[in-house]
Amino acid sequence: MNLFYQPGIREGITHLDAEESRHAVRVLRLSESDRLDLTDGKGFFYSAKIINADSRKCEFEILDRKEIQKRNFYIHVAIAPTKNADRTEWFVEKATELGIDEITFIQCKNSERKTTNVDRVEKIAVSAMKQSQQAWLPIIHEMVPFQKALATKAHQKFIAYVDAANPKHLQSVAQKEKSYLVLIGPEGDFSKEELKLAIQNGFEKVSLGINRLRTETAGVISVHTLGLVNKS
Amino acid sequence: MNLFYQPGIREGITHLDAEESRHAVRVLRLSESDRLDLTDGKGFFYSAKIINADSRKCEFEILDRKEIQKRNFYIHVAIAPTKNADRTEWFVEKATELGIDEITFIQCKNSERKTTNVDRVEKIAVSAMKQSQQAWLPIIHEMVPFQKALATKAHQKFIAYVDAANPKHLQSVAQKEKSYLVLIGPEGDFSKEELKLAIQNGFEKVSLGINRLRTETAGVISVHTLGLVNKS
Repeated sequence: MNLFYQPGIREGITHLDAEESRHAVRVLRLSESDRLDLTDGKGFFYSAKIINADSRKCEFEILDRKEIQKRNFYIHVAIAPTKNADRTEWFVEKATELGIDEITFIQCKNSERKTTNVDRVEKIAVSAMKQSQQAWLPIIHEMVPFQKALATKAHQKFIAYVDAANPKHLQSVAQKEKSYLVLIGPEGDFSKEELKLAIQNGFEKVSLGINRLRTETAGVISVHTLGLVNKS
Repeated sequence: MNLFYQPGIREGITHLDAEESRHAVRVLRLSESDRLDLTDGKGFFYSAKIINADSRKCEFEILDRKEIQKRNFYIHVAIAPTKNADRTEWFVEKATELGIDEITFIQCKNSERKTTNVDRVEKIAVSAMKQSQQAWLPIIHEMVPFQKALATKAHQKFIAYVDAANPKHLQSVAQKEKSYLVLIGPEGDFSKEELKLAIQNGFEKVSLGINRLRTETAGVISVHTLGLVNKS
């Protein structure tokens, strides 16, 4: 099934935007009366029928809608963008597939990359949401300084960090049905000062396993671990 | 720490191969008497000292070695290569980072890709092993037909497949301290006949979560799930 993304349907929008119109009409060769499956990325799936197969503005009529409730837990990952932008994009794709609610990019002392192309990353999230047939698009924020991310609210706040004091595994400290914020550091890891600041702000130091993981792997694995905690 | 890979040290090899020599001498500018950290990919870490900093054949003397025992569980994933080779390579990288023992590529009825570049994939595994500071390199096999993979021995054999009969989650059926074989299908999934054949051969149908996952995501997540099962 091809799932199309069109924000704003509840607010009255009844056409696909230019890119999705082109995909529907030019690539998939859909025409008048053909069925469209849509999501607004905000919890609704729609069944629709094409009424004007314009490749720049494909109009449709809604036939049916189905609401998908949010899960009873909430995953927010604040992550330092990797030096190689592909790796950050992989994180966004995989985290979206597995189910993530919110992503914030953070600028850390040891960050090698100071900017992120949020538009590009959003497109990847949309594509992953459609591919994995979900109705919720994660919220993605522009980059913020590390300190600012510390003020974000969550029931449980974690900082992924492995040191001699061997922290507990995320799996063993995360409780079910909570909102979580997980901080994932850059290639050069968090600085000692950042770690100290996080702990002063109520973050708990956690491990994601015995192996040294790359930033994007740590991000994906934290999402998967929290999903499993809520399943078991 | 830069970890170098040199197979055959126990068999008497005391120099880096051409690529690692170039990296040590040309890129990192290591010279005589500098320390080298090595692994043979078969469970040993070595401390060595460079005795001839030749950029084509860097010779070293072993100072110390440390044996890393295999874990008390064994993960073998048999996976259909993805249409886009990057996705398969990403699976190999992430599975190696997280800890996988053996990878077999399988050719399925719905496979879009009929070949895999095992040399290239091995290089990715070596790089991921070094990056994550491990001493065991996964065994990687050439592609085999689906039927042949069914004959592989393991304590627990799983086929990842989601259908209306809603199988159990891998996390709930995997027992600790076993050898596991997990079959992961191609983009078009396993055929009904392949599923039937697997079940006749003692495989258990399992789910990896409620979202529809891409092949490479399913592969990585199965490795991570089995790791967590053995941790908790």
